[in-house]
Amino acid sequence: VDRAEVVAMDEADELTQLRQHFSIPEDGPIYLDGNSLGPPPSAVGAAVIHALDEWRLRLVGGWEEWIDLPTKIGDRLGRLLGAAPGQVLVCDSTTINLYKVVAAALETGTDRGEIVADAGDFPTDRYVLQGLSRSTGRRLRLLHDPTSDEVIDALGSDTALVCLSHVDFRTGRRLDGARICQAARDAGTLTIWDLAHSAGAVPLELDDWGADLAVGCTYKYLNAGPGAPGFVYVRRDLQDLLGQPIWGWFGQARQFEMGENYEPAPGITSFLAGTPGLIGLRAVEAALGVTDQVGVGALWAKSVRLTELLLDRVDERLVPLGAKVVTPRQPDQRGSHVSISHPKARPWCRTLIEQRLVVGDFRPPDIFRLGPAPLYTRFVDCFDAVEEMARTLEAGIDETAPSGRVT
Amino acid sequence: VDRAEVVAMDEADELTQLRQHFSIPEDGPIYLDGNSLGPPPSAVGAAVIHALDEWRLRLVGGWEEWIDLPTKIGDRLGRLLGAAPGQVLVCDSTTINLYKVVAAALETGTDRGEIVADAGDFPTDRYVLQGLSRSTGRRLRLLHDPTSDEVIDALGSDTALVCLSHVDFRTGRRLDGARICQAARDAGTLTIWDLAHSAGAVPLELDDWGADLAVGCTYKYLNAGPGAPGFVYVRRDLQDLLGQPIWGWFGQARQFEMGENYEPAPGITSFLAGTPGLIGLRAVEAALGVTDQVGVGALWAKSVRLTELLLDRVDERLVPLGAKVVTPRQPDQRGSHVSISHPKARPWCRTLIEQRLVVGDFRPPDIFRLGPAPLYTRFVDCFDAVEEMARTLEAGIDETAPSGRVT
Repeated sequence: VDRAEVVAMDEADELTQLRQHFSIPEDGPIYLDGNSLGPPPSAVGAAVIHALDEWRLRLVGGWEEWIDLPTKIGDRLGRLLGAAPGQVLVCDSTTINLYKVVAAALETGTDRGEIVADAGDFPTDRYVLQGLSRSTGRRLRLLHDPTSDEVIDALGSDTALVCLSHVDFRTGRRLDGARICQAARDAGTLTIWDLAHSAGAVPLELDDWGADLAVGCTYKYLNAGPGAPGFVYVRRDLQDLLGQPIWGWFGQARQFEMGENYEPAPGITSFLAGTPGLIGLRAVEAALGVTDQVGVGALWAKSVRLTELLLDRVDERLVPLGAKVVTPRQPDQRGSHVSISHPKARPWCRTLIEQRLVVGDFRPPDIFRLGPAPLYTRFVDCFDAVEEMARTLEAGIDETAPSGRVT
Repeated sequence: VDRAEVVAMDEADELTQLRQHFSIPEDGPIYLDGNSLGPPPSAVGAAVIHALDEWRLRLVGGWEEWIDLPTKIGDRLGRLLGAAPGQVLVCDSTTINLYKVVAAALETGTDRGEIVADAGDFPTDRYVLQGLSRSTGRRLRLLHDPTSDEVIDALGSDTALVCLSHVDFRTGRRLDGARICQAARDAGTLTIWDLAHSAGAVPLELDDWGADLAVGCTYKYLNAGPGAPGFVYVRRDLQDLLGQPIWGWFGQARQFEMGENYEPAPGITSFLAGTPGLIGLRAVEAALGVTDQVGVGALWAKSVRLTELLLDRVDERLVPLGAKVVTPRQPDQRGSHVSISHPKARPWCRTLIEQRLVVGDFRPPDIFRLGPAPLYTRFVDCFDAVEEMARTLEAGIDETAPSGRVT
């Protein structure tokens, strides 16, 4: 393809107009890091400002309505996850939510001895599992970049739970949620999914999979803002069986009776702990409205075209320069980002950012991630980004420059 | 005193002009519930809108700066707590932070068998302690509305920790932090303070007390917004001895190396867990700026005058109508709110809110709280509020109206 054809693809695409809902500076670098932090939709800014008004005008009386937002917005988010109402909360951070569900599973869900996980999973997932495997006396069995089949083969009669990212944060490889959940069910094992790189990007069917537990964030493909609240999914028939360990007043039955003893609220509410933040919740609500305008099915269809274009351009321009594609070629085996490995990935990525050409990101040891997001990334952005990447590499990378702490 | 004298007190008071920094509708009810949720300072609104700009313009690159905000803003908040830098984080909720420090104390700080706490403490404190006393096999010894002497008498050679609210959320009674910390030190016991009703209201000297651990919120007297982030204090020489149980990537040493094994970051940072929210952090930072304009010493001096006026008016107008003052009369034994008990407290409070006269709040079983906040409450507000309360009670309360869930 040449650039004119790519420009024509944007002109012909119905989703191109969605970009106008975002505040993306036209003179800035090409932003391919929405899988780390999505840019602000105008509606989120408006919702945040509206939340300031709610606070000002309603003061403490606002809690009559706000108290239900973690479940109400959770239900709305649940539609993107394939979850019927009453199974999703928007609250706390992904890390805190993962801690709650892993602890609940290990302390009240099973007495089996082994946790199966991915040695290369996102750090917070691995660390939460390390901490809780130690404190609950479980073995942590780490698979190395497993396929779905390798995960399934690892499940046995002593597997307490299997905890995995649906889409790998480095390579973009996607696991087969339905098959793994079926195998886990057959093995009597609980499943925990980290959906950080899936929610808002790829179609999800947690209820249909028979998934048990899941967590994720709202600041990547959902664009709710830096450190916006996370979410947690607990399958309905597990909610009153599993007890999470952080006993707080928002998880208490009849909260404002302030009763003597902790009594978990029925249903998903028992997975709340402390007071949720209004502004963050309103940001998530408005961000969901942006995604709902078109739906995750249409977004995924465009994501496939964007990542296919990226792969085509990488093959043509970057593979001859030493890059290797590490993202699966089959669309149903990947998420919405494309990763390459290259020995100079770290300084290459940094140079492109410093020269304000392309913002992707580096992940150790040698991965350069490119995350197009169909709500605002154009085909021409993918084309131009790879051209800039090629030109920068051809011009020579200064590997001695100090690396930023966050890249 | 008569109303004209009270109006003259406002006119003569230097702090009266601080009210202009808040967006308080002049035609609204008298707001005496800032000890539940403070109103928005204009500076917080501006900071929130600025945070939207930071997000838009810096995108993922903003994390270079944002990543340090929990410690940087924590240091600033620490000045209000009497804490030298490097001992306070702004993050998560009060409940989550309390869970972290109680678990850290019980799992890595001591092997003693008993927790001393207050049977009437705020629900989330009691529930966190119940959960962790159960999971760690400790006895929970609950004192009933203890004095400082009764707390000290309860500390013994098997006391693992004593966890208390510095200012009681119902009665406003304040404990003697310095003496209790000294006695706890003598008994070899760790202290955990909930400062929710103290931070920004009464002068605190955690370092001078020799306090060990503390938590609190920023949405009451600090006015950072509904569900704004909480804070946690860990005394410097305990930070590397105590391990908190939620192992997340923000608590990891050399976070962006994404190393294989969890290794707690040195210092207070190990008490972080997941990704903190930018907007909430900027709100706290701006809210601290409002309090710092005058300092907590001057605020406390005015608070004493406000609560003394309230007590005077309650004695004159409400005690003859059956109200009893439950807040200590000595200023150094109370916080910044005045509570009365009355058999009709619940419907009385609700009626005043529904008629848009006075917003105080009800706490079970029979407590009506009035929380003046010296940043924006005028003397005349205290005078008028008690007059409205008296008139409403004299007119007769409809006790059959349905009670709101949140009062």
